[in-house]
Amino acid sequence: MDFHTLVHTTRSCRRFFQDPRIETDFLKSLVNLSRMTASAANLQPLKYILSSDPDTNAKIFNCLGWAGYLKDWPGPVFDERPTGYIVILGDQNIAKYFDMDVGIVAQTIMLGAYHNNFGGCMIANFRHQQLTDALEIADHYRILLVLALGTPKESIVIEPIGSDGNFKYFRDEQDVHHVPKRSLDDIIVRIY
Amino acid sequence: MDFHTLVHTTRSCRRFFQDPRIETDFLKSLVNLSRMTASAANLQPLKYILSSDPDTNAKIFNCLGWAGYLKDWPGPVFDERPTGYIVILGDQNIAKYFDMDVGIVAQTIMLGAYHNNFGGCMIANFRHQQLTDALEIADHYRILLVLALGTPKESIVIEPIGSDGNFKYFRDEQDVHHVPKRSLDDIIVRIY
Repeated sequence: MDFHTLVHTTRSCRRFFQDPRIETDFLKSLVNLSRMTASAANLQPLKYILSSDPDTNAKIFNCLGWAGYLKDWPGPVFDERPTGYIVILGDQNIAKYFDMDVGIVAQTIMLGAYHNNFGGCMIANFRHQQLTDALEIADHYRILLVLALGTPKESIVIEPIGSDGNFKYFRDEQDVHHVPKRSLDDIIVRIY
Repeated sequence: MDFHTLVHTTRSCRRFFQDPRIETDFLKSLVNLSRMTASAANLQPLKYILSSDPDTNAKIFNCLGWAGYLKDWPGPVFDERPTGYIVILGDQNIAKYFDMDVGIVAQTIMLGAYHNNFGGCMIANFRHQQLTDALEIADHYRILLVLALGTPKESIVIEPIGSDGNFKYFRDEQDVHHVPKRSLDDIIVRIY
């Protein structure tokens, strides 16, 4: 898959087939790939917890919020849930700020997942203390982001933001997920 | 180029050939690609200023800090400077926080650049007010990151962090740039 297609294919997906499942070795390969990315001042303060274990997946799932704009949808039903997770932690013994690094890493992992016919969603809406307790995470780590992963089971389309300016994603009657995106003209302020 | 190779190829490069130069259309294509990426709550608050113009490039260059760990190196000499820039702005009329989005976008743009035999460096060390003035940037924008781009002219190698724990990049006598990276074992806290 060429890179242009890969970026277009890498959509936030929130429902998954249960077969094939995410395997530990694949999660490790994604983290190993993200290890090669740029890091602010090369500090590399991000650490990772990986899960492809159903019991641990269930614990993580219970801490997550899903798709804020889909008010009537509490998240994927049991047999459409992620089959793996990568929990991204900031090691506060190494750095105090992580946010540039976490986006770099999260996007690299997601592109790597879709490159291998998996996919998922970056979830920043989670109950921090509950997840800290569930995974017995040490005090010097801060949970930054949860990557929910699996085999995508959603139709997702990108479309222009309409004249009403509404940028909220929605699902139509055919269960297709629509994601409005700003136009190129709208996001380029100036060209020299 | 397969994705694994692309990620490994996408190194932070700070010296550039002056031919081929970055062209406006290519900068636009990179921003157009990054437009397709995930955005927190799909707000898409990032905006862009593009430059492939030598005079504007010079203004931007004057606002940048280069390679903090190379104390004796003030930055690239005149004929090794970036031939293009993408300045990433946060539109404060849309959002207050941008940091997750900016890493996602910056990495996508860098991968896209290297995919086309260009490359560059994400620079967060810039003089904000000076750059705001130089580019006459409106008050509701906050400059988040400067992507310096061009045709890479550096040999860069990744290597393991040694037993001394030193993570600072350095240049050797042959002018090769070395980047120590933490091991996979060092960054995976736990696997379920």
